Amino acid sequence: MIEDKKVSKILYGGDYNPTQWPEEIWQEDMRLFSLAKVDVVSINIFDWALNQPDEETYDFSILDKVMDLLRKNNIKVCLGTGTAAHPAWMAKKYPDILRVEFNGMKRKFGGRHNSCPNSPTFKKYASEMVKHLSLRYKDYNNIVAWHVSNEYGGACYCENCEKQFRVWLKRKYKTIERLNEAWNTRFWGHTFYSFDEIVVPNLLSEHFEVERTMFQGISLDYARFNSDSMLENFITERNILKKITPNIQITTNFMGFYKPLDYFKWAKYLDFIAWDNYPSNDTSYEKIAMSHDLMRGLKGGKPFALMEQTPSVTNWLPYNALKRPGVMRLWSYEAVAHGSDTVMFFQMRRTIGACEKFHGALIDHVGNENTRVFRECSKLGEELQLIGDKVLGGRIEAKVAIVFDWDNWWAIEYSAGPSLDLKYVDEVFKYYKELMDLNIPVDIISTDDVLDKYEVVIAPVLYMIKKGYKDKLEDYVAKGGTFVTTFFSGIVNENDKVKLGGYPGDIRKLMGIWVEEIDALPKGVFNEIVVEEKFKELKGSYKAELLCDIIHLEGAEMVARYGKDFYKDTPCITKNKFKEGEAWYVATSCEDTFLSKFINYLCVKKNIKPILCAQKDIEVTRRVKEDREITFVLNHSEEIKNIVLDKKYKDILKDEIYKKESEIKLNAKGVLVLESI
Amino acid sequence: MIEDKKVSKILYGGDYNPTQWPEEIWQEDMRLFSLAKVDVVSINIFDWALNQPDEETYDFSILDKVMDLLRKNNIKVCLGTGTAAHPAWMAKKYPDILRVEFNGMKRKFGGRHNSCPNSPTFKKYASEMVKHLSLRYKDYNNIVAWHVSNEYGGACYCENCEKQFRVWLKRKYKTIERLNEAWNTRFWGHTFYSFDEIVVPNLLSEHFEVERTMFQGISLDYARFNSDSMLENFITERNILKKITPNIQITTNFMGFYKPLDYFKWAKYLDFIAWDNYPSNDTSYEKIAMSHDLMRGLKGGKPFALMEQTPSVTNWLPYNALKRPGVMRLWSYEAVAHGSDTVMFFQMRRTIGACEKFHGALIDHVGNENTRVFRECSKLGEELQLIGDKVLGGRIEAKVAIVFDWDNWWAIEYSAGPSLDLKYVDEVFKYYKELMDLNIPVDIISTDDVLDKYEVVIAPVLYMIKKGYKDKLEDYVAKGGTFVTTFFSGIVNENDKVKLGGYPGDIRKLMGIWVEEIDALPKGVFNEIVVEEKFKELKGSYKAELLCDIIHLEGAEMVARYGKDFYKDTPCITKNKFKEGEAWYVATSCEDTFLSKFINYLCVKKNIKPILCAQKDIEVTRRVKEDREITFVLNHSEEIKNIVLDKKYKDILKDEIYKKESEIKLNAKGVLVLESI
Amino acid sequence: MIEDKKVSKILYGGDYNPTQWPEEIWQEDMRLFSLAKVDVVSINIFDWALNQPDEETYDFSILDKVMDLLRKNNIKVCLGTGTAAHPAWMAKKYPDILRVEFNGMKRKFGGRHNSCPNSPTFKKYASEMVKHLSLRYKDYNNIVAWHVSNEYGGACYCENCEKQFRVWLKRKYKTIERLNEAWNTRFWGHTFYSFDEIVVPNLLSEHFEVERTMFQGISLDYARFNSDSMLENFITERNILKKITPNIQITTNFMGFYKPLDYFKWAKYLDFIAWDNYPSNDTSYEKIAMSHDLMRGLKGGKPFALMEQTPSVTNWLPYNALKRPGVMRLWSYEAVAHGSDTVMFFQMRRTIGACEKFHGALIDHVGNENTRVFRECSKLGEELQLIGDKVLGGRIEAKVAIVFDWDNWWAIEYSAGPSLDLKYVDEVFKYYKELMDLNIPVDIISTDDVLDKYEVVIAPVLYMIKKGYKDKLEDYVAKGGTFVTTFFSGIVNENDKVKLGGYPGDIRKLMGIWVEEIDALPKGVFNEIVVEEKFKELKGSYKAELLCDIIHLEGAEMVARYGKDFYKDTPCITKNKFKEGEAWYVATSCEDTFLSKFINYLCVKKNIKPILCAQKDIEVTRRVKEDREITFVLNHSEEIKNIVLDKKYKDILKDEIYKKESEIKLNAKGVLVLESI
Repeated sequence: MIEDKKVSKILYGGDYNPTQWPEEIWQEDMRLFSLAKVDVVSINIFDWALNQPDEETYDFSILDKVMDLLRKNNIKVCLGTGTAAHPAWMAKKYPDILRVEFNGMKRKFGGRHNSCPNSPTFKKYASEMVKHLSLRYKDYNNIVAWHVSNEYGGACYCENCEKQFRVWLKRKYKTIERLNEAWNTRFWGHTFYSFDEIVVPNLLSEHFEVERTMFQGISLDYARFNSDSMLENFITERNILKKITPNIQITTNFMGFYKPLDYFKWAKYLDFIAWDNYPSNDTSYEKIAMSHDLMRGLKGGKPFALMEQTPSVTNWLPYNALKRPGVMRLWSYEAVAHGSDTVMFFQMRRTIGACEKFHGALIDHVGNENTRVFRECSKLGEELQLIGDKVLGGRIEAKVAIVFDWDNWWAIEYSAGPSLDLKYVDEVFKYYKELMDLNIPVDIISTDDVLDKYEVVIAPVLYMIKKGYKDKLEDYVAKGGTFVTTFFSGIVNENDKVKLGGYPGDIRKLMGIWVEEIDALPKGVFNEIVVEEKFKELKGSYKAELLCDIIHLEGAEMVARYGKDFYKDTPCITKNKFKEGEAWYVATSCEDTFLSKFINYLCVKKNIKPILCAQKDIEVTRRVKEDREITFVLNHSEEIKNIVLDKKYKDILKDEIYKKESEIKLNAKGVLVLESI
Repeated sequence: MIEDKKVSKILYGGDYNPTQWPEEIWQEDMRLFSLAKVDVVSINIFDWALNQPDEETYDFSILDKVMDLLRKNNIKVCLGTGTAAHPAWMAKKYPDILRVEFNGMKRKFGGRHNSCPNSPTFKKYASEMVKHLSLRYKDYNNIVAWHVSNEYGGACYCENCEKQFRVWLKRKYKTIERLNEAWNTRFWGHTFYSFDEIVVPNLLSEHFEVERTMFQGISLDYARFNSDSMLENFITERNILKKITPNIQITTNFMGFYKPLDYFKWAKYLDFIAWDNYPSNDTSYEKIAMSHDLMRGLKGGKPFALMEQTPSVTNWLPYNALKRPGVMRLWSYEAVAHGSDTVMFFQMRRTIGACEKFHGALIDHVGNENTRVFRECSKLGEELQLIGDKVLGGRIEAKVAIVFDWDNWWAIEYSAGPSLDLKYVDEVFKYYKELMDLNIPVDIISTDDVLDKYEVVIAPVLYMIKKGYKDKLEDYVAKGGTFVTTFFSGIVNENDKVKLGGYPGDIRKLMGIWVEEIDALPKGVFNEIVVEEKFKELKGSYKAELLCDIIHLEGAEMVARYGKDFYKDTPCITKNKFKEGEAWYVATSCEDTFLSKFINYLCVKKNIKPILCAQKDIEVTRRVKEDREITFVLNHSEEIKNIVLDKKYKDILKDEIYKKESEIKLNAKGVLVLESI
Repeated sequence: MIEDKKVSKILYGGDYNPTQWPEEIWQEDMRLFSLAKVDVVSINIFDWALNQPDEETYDFSILDKVMDLLRKNNIKVCLGTGTAAHPAWMAKKYPDILRVEFNGMKRKFGGRHNSCPNSPTFKKYASEMVKHLSLRYKDYNNIVAWHVSNEYGGACYCENCEKQFRVWLKRKYKTIERLNEAWNTRFWGHTFYSFDEIVVPNLLSEHFEVERTMFQGISLDYARFNSDSMLENFITERNILKKITPNIQITTNFMGFYKPLDYFKWAKYLDFIAWDNYPSNDTSYEKIAMSHDLMRGLKGGKPFALMEQTPSVTNWLPYNALKRPGVMRLWSYEAVAHGSDTVMFFQMRRTIGACEKFHGALIDHVGNENTRVFRECSKLGEELQLIGDKVLGGRIEAKVAIVFDWDNWWAIEYSAGPSLDLKYVDEVFKYYKELMDLNIPVDIISTDDVLDKYEVVIAPVLYMIKKGYKDKLEDYVAKGGTFVTTFFSGIVNENDKVKLGGYPGDIRKLMGIWVEEIDALPKGVFNEIVVEEKFKELKGSYKAELLCDIIHLEGAEMVARYGKDFYKDTPCITKNKFKEGEAWYVATSCEDTFLSKFINYLCVKKNIKPILCAQKDIEVTRRVKEDREITFVLNHSEEIKNIVLDKKYKDILKDEIYKKESEIKLNAKGVLVLESI
């Protein structure tokens, strides 16, 4: 489906649930799909109960008809394994399949994404189902991907999970002594003498809120275990599918910055990344972009699939406002602009009952093509045909990377102190946003990724420094790289145990500073960042908030100082020359005005330039493949914007040639797709 | 008790708990009752445990004394069956009587209204108790009503309820296929193969909050089932009582707009409606009035009993402010003005311990008559004697009806989307308030009631259109009626399944419009209602909020258009000429200023006029019986108001005659009871 | 440890957890302790699991080493019994040790302070442990106290507690009839026929929130029972210790105004009071002072131990700001100034992992003495050496007492009505604060304490009047005492049953008033207090809020009247001449401006004068012992303050003599320790 020879254009379509409709409707669906230029659908996402009426019976008669209909109509299929919701009969007969909540309550049948990942029943029957499915449909050459389960997520705290957690811990720590050491269990008398004494960390044991735990060690390991448990579910289905249909790509749909699952770890097992993009109407375009870039980063920059988005409204927000005219198109292009090779929706036809009946769809309850939404969708369908294969496989070329790490995320937010307001993703976004506003491409990378190809690497709140990462960072800077990190970094190891000897621990030498204390500022309280005279480009006084590390220089240079409080005039931003490179420490959470200048300063120094232009509310990205270069210009504002071109381009959608320095008037919510010529 | 020959005046009294007091106090109570002109009390509401010390023993010795005392003192009795709180011994021995919470926790003994409605133990022992009680007291001719249980409410989610729910579903749907169809269970893989697979919808299955469900179909049916289960409890007691004391009326006390119970369904089984009115001090008088009118509407306009109100304070609000001087009297008359034939309090003597010890009472802890509250109460007692039988049985004559429907209420608020802020009762109240401010009488009617006697029928947010209701509405309008409905109407059928083919579904033809999309406006965001020039009486520009339906005219006329956003200039209010009548569609939630003009406009067109006058904070109603006509004028303001009379009246309380066009100075919180002469 | 011959100076140190660290660190600790003048540590607080690896094995090898090391280094030990967190193996084997939550959920292993107080397993193994410990270490002469368990608290609702609750009730009430009477169980049909029918009052029975119950009687008794249950745990350990080490003092660490435990009842069993002081940075100094004074009051004025405070940050607040320079010192002296004979910290060395790793410590993660915190601590250590034994055993001499009562606290806040905003401690603090701002010493006393030594006794919101207390109050006033109480007083007896016959019940005669009604004012709504001309010193008009009692004078004199509402001009503050004394009733919650004048007025009348001076943000206290008098002057402001001395003093810290009327410039956060000479 992605970088797939069977595919010669951006696939267009989405989730399709014909089994919810009488067959007479299906023909009408085909007519409407054709009108809208839909060429791919995801099916069988939730049909386990339908396809397997009891333990022994498998009945694919309806799915057979659907598959045949789609093949006949030349529609590609992203085929769900359907294991995202277990059947009611199974829950009744085998309650082990039901999850236990964070508060200890055993669930009953209901909802979806509801199976315990460590349920023997689930494992057995999910595998059986996948076997049956893949054997039955392996020869349909219109299958472009297996869609395993759906939006994996949540967590379970049942007895099976507890037992399996102990097995997982034994595998990790080998002996109980090493576990005791890792978790620092002599604190509060937690010494364990046997793995069997360990219970799941939840509201009944170590937690007093979902995010607040009394023992970070066990909670952190449980977060890993829970992610791994679901990953194992995925791998189990994947392995069966790989064996039976080795030539069909396999994926599942991710959800952007979704905390419970360590997607970097998962990504290795997916043939390509697919994800569901559900911003609310007031989400900033930079925030959406950051999710796309994370998804692209999961597999080292490989194009991904936008698997779901709503064509108009969602149904689960407090206020489900309509996507304004043009926004669906704009946000579809934003996905492509950041690396998506598909544009797909949930849902093709609006369901008639249950909780998603007010979720937007290509085909509304009115049932015909005479709606604004359908018209906008079919217009986009036509455009995607014009674009053809031009962007397929195209990569983003970035000189700047932002480090993102799930373990770090969990550890920071499980931390008891210094401030409840410290949210990892928010701090990451502060830096990302400034780069995006400059139209400087960014890769979001894991701690496993190589750094050498980047001029600048930014790792906000690098609280946890994993084994070996110190060396990687030192090597990188030593060779000339620019590294930026912030307050509350270098504090702990993988087990959330403090690196003794002074913060920022492992990177104290690299940063050339010692952080003596960390002050927490209540909401609405600010300190000041006063830049040293020497740094003219950054000149000024800015707001500092959230946390203020109190620093002693150990070789680093002071770039800015605090303007207030008892640590007035101590360093607030420092730069350390480390062999060929520079290591910057930003000791507080800075206001945007400063960060904007700071990021610009770093880029200018490294000669990293905006693509095309840096203009308010204008997003520009570029996808490059062999000798082809496609530039996307997106106007996120409510006004017409003038874009001055930096070279000669072909406007793919209008089939027009623009000279260098042409001034293009780009409508509100408008999009340019430009090929360099 | 209501329309009862034994009763020749507005009964006055309330809940009396002599069993909580030593007998020496009882004589004092009789003296004080006589001082206050109390002539009715409700007793034995919570004395099950007292009257039945164990499984086999019934001991009515105390109740016997109480009954004899009351008879001797000529006090009428509203006799409780006492089943509103089961005994502790019963809970211990038969835990099936204890409810299970929405979150799955099994309750222990405590509180009140605590029995599982499907508990075999409850059913058995409640019936036994009612049999004993009724046989014992059947010959007391001062019993004016049986007061079955008390304030039925809440819900249970236990295994017995689950089993009984399946029986209820089987009775309703006959086959599992029809249930699957009704609930659209192919959504999210919910296909059931047997009724036994169905579990109660709560926090452990389909719900994520009390009001938010993933499957509307099952949640809606459970709401009906829960209401029916308690209704069955009521009917069981009622049938026993009817058999043994066929001449005593039977009721239970309702609670106004109480969501869990479908009172329209219940009302058929009550001989008269009784209800408990507990507004907080800042509740508007129109809101109280609306509850009274709902209660009157439950039995087609028949007078009802105000069974409880506090003479002074409540105890369960965050701030239990005193009812200001005059307010108890004013609100008592408001009840009568809207159809009550009683004025009753909770409680006659303030209890000494447990949670209602700070709830107001006729007799305070000080224990004598020398209190403001007692004085105000006995003053009112005297007035009610003056009024005598003049209003008993009097009816309100209304030309305007508002449709209210519990199924619709449940379905709207279980809906996932478009806005969490959409509250059915709030929208109903917006229309009711404008009518009340004009002193135009309103009937609140169910979807089963006939429409023909009304000039104007308003059905705000008629989201669910039940089988046959479309025809009823079309007939009504065809014959010349004026029908008004609003945004988010005509969406679903009884099972919350969408009517396909374009909103507002069944009434699309009647309304002459097609609603293409529904936009949700976050709190504080507004659109504009701009009235067309032609409609001079409505002229102006007004705020629109909450939801905005986007409309296409299909025969209807545009009355107002939106003033903003991408659907600017599309219709916002429409009027459709349908045969002899008119159907109005108000596509958004309007500000009061507009609704006030709109309601006035409709009434003027239909020649419906205020009773006496429409004056700010002055409420006027009229009760009519045969040739007698009593008009109530209530001053809810803090100022003296001038009332100009439209004809000749007799002031019943002052025994004075007023000429037409007299100008009466009505004190703050003052009341006029006028007889037309 | 307190009033202990072995101790000749203010002990200085705190919680020390060497078992969390490798032995090589211990030597470094000794060096750093010596640098900081640390001479006492609390150890073994949470080492149960470490010291007892299974049911039969006790292994004190590590503790032995620690004890020897400390003895060798001349460090005194406050030896924990270690029972504040049970071992994981115990929880696994004997689940009865695990608590059941308020919502009925059974806990699993985790956290601390986690044992059910009525668990047979806990009782057995805790006793065993204490026996082993005390036998092993009884001869270490550096043990200055047993530190039993740690911060007792919380509550359990398990079956064992339920059974034990019934036993407790039987012991209290003897017969079920007396219990029914006490709880007024005929209300809501709660008559019990056997103690076995009674269940624990929690979210599953009588409560709908933690603080809101439907039956005050049972909830109040459960609060007492829960406090008693833990007290019994304490007494059990204490009795073993007393037997084996009769010469070592025994304590546990309290937590100031901690609601679940009736510390007055507990205090009898402690040899001295110890407590943990964890204000947040924005806690006012008067609030901290009030906690100290409560702690001092628990044992009739005896000096206490400040057992824990943080030297810098806490970790569990939303925002854990650093203690500003000087604040640790200032607050340490504040403790001493109010009666503490120790200054102790949690923790000596900052832990490496789990939830307290960001809690401040003497020795930070950097591990050396080169930190601001260490420097401030060692400076204080030096000062405490200078002070030597001068304040040890010194008492505060107070002429004013404030009555505080846990039963009253529970009962007021379990009360259903009149206002949810009524918080007992807040009302107490209003009066305390005014006295503190005048630098007038206050004792906080229980209802058991004698009143005769006080000129003024203030009992805010004396809702519950216990048996005999009326007589005590009347005697006190009769002999010339000034008694002040407020609104919502004299309402109930020990069982929360109303005293009939008119509020304020038992003290109606003493106060010379009758309270007819109690009005509740919503937040932001105010009445007015208008003082009568005659009371010139109080002259003016002030805000009244929360509750307004409506009063009739029965002998008392009107001091102020209400300025608004229907009870305008009725008395708001009254004074009753009762034999030789005066009884004042403040019928509403007054604004500070008034209370400040009022308290001053009362003190002036009784010739009670500020110590040294009354100056904004300057706190002055005095500790007196035999012929020695030490005065503490604390500058809580951010500015330098001028202090004019009232007589000749010696500045102990500076070893300087000040003449009478010297003007001392006291730095922001500065402290003077003055000896009268």
